[in-house]
Amino acid sequence: MTTELYDLTVPVFTRGLRALSAILDKAVAHAAATGVDANAWLSVRLIDDMNPLIKQVQTACDSPKLCVARLSRVTAPVHDDSETTIADLQNRIADTLAFIGSVPREAIDGQEGRPVVVRFPGGEMTFLGQPYVTGFAVPNFYFHLTMAYGLLRAQGVPLGKRDYMGAPG
Amino acid sequence: MTTELYDLTVPVFTRGLRALSAILDKAVAHAAATGVDANAWLSVRLIDDMNPLIKQVQTACDSPKLCVARLSRVTAPVHDDSETTIADLQNRIADTLAFIGSVPREAIDGQEGRPVVVRFPGGEMTFLGQPYVTGFAVPNFYFHLTMAYGLLRAQGVPLGKRDYMGAPG
Repeated sequence: MTTELYDLTVPVFTRGLRALSAILDKAVAHAAATGVDANAWLSVRLIDDMNPLIKQVQTACDSPKLCVARLSRVTAPVHDDSETTIADLQNRIADTLAFIGSVPREAIDGQEGRPVVVRFPGGEMTFLGQPYVTGFAVPNFYFHLTMAYGLLRAQGVPLGKRDYMGAPG
Repeated sequence: MTTELYDLTVPVFTRGLRALSAILDKAVAHAAATGVDANAWLSVRLIDDMNPLIKQVQTACDSPKLCVARLSRVTAPVHDDSETTIADLQNRIADTLAFIGSVPREAIDGQEGRPVVVRFPGGEMTFLGQPYVTGFAVPNFYFHLTMAYGLLRAQGVPLGKRDYMGAPG
């Protein structure tokens, strides 16, 4: 028995994005219960030169979106990072879930050995599909999901590891 | 083409643990350069009721160790969480790398459908091997690796995403 590439990507990201959405819901509920503005948390960060919560959530969406688009060669929806509220971020998560959920298994399975190009502002990197997933896209996704969790946890939002892990789809 | 379970575990954890070790080396170097005691950072945490850095590193070691032991049914070395310094933690990481590196591929490949029991203080959960890896062990590992990175980044240690991602083995 072995694992198909689809099962290393779409269900993994779907579970994580749903967990992220539920974490943001808990943040909104906690803010309401304590009389603060949850949207003010979108600018919190661990240290001055690190990305704030809003960017962690945006990147936690882009990482799966771009991974699924690169593997499947299906064109991804464009997001221009214009979100200003948690409600906006929830729409972005929903949009990302809809996109990755729309890509059929057949478009991803079998892409393990195909070159995948990732472009950065300073250049580009070429991976094969399988190491791109396990060595780049998945760790990158969990990095931003964990950062979003940690930033809200640090604000006192009542979160535990189960909120991060989410539930199997 | 598909992916064997070994390739979803040992190389993934090895890369992450080596990245963690290099992150701790950078913390020690930064502390020395700025005249502070790096070991004092072992008690930093994001918020009072969250685990400190030392526990994040210990758990980032236990997660791969226990995953590999459960899948392969090879007995894992016991660690009693007696570390008090970064040097101690580096020994633990090295010990964990040696253990997971000692388990042969044949002991892990093919275990996707075998039940794996995870015991918690409050009970136990039973998974099949493949969802245990992709839905539990791997996200748990990246959670603690990211937390360790974030806690040191928040102390001013000069780290970037590449330090978290590490290098392919």
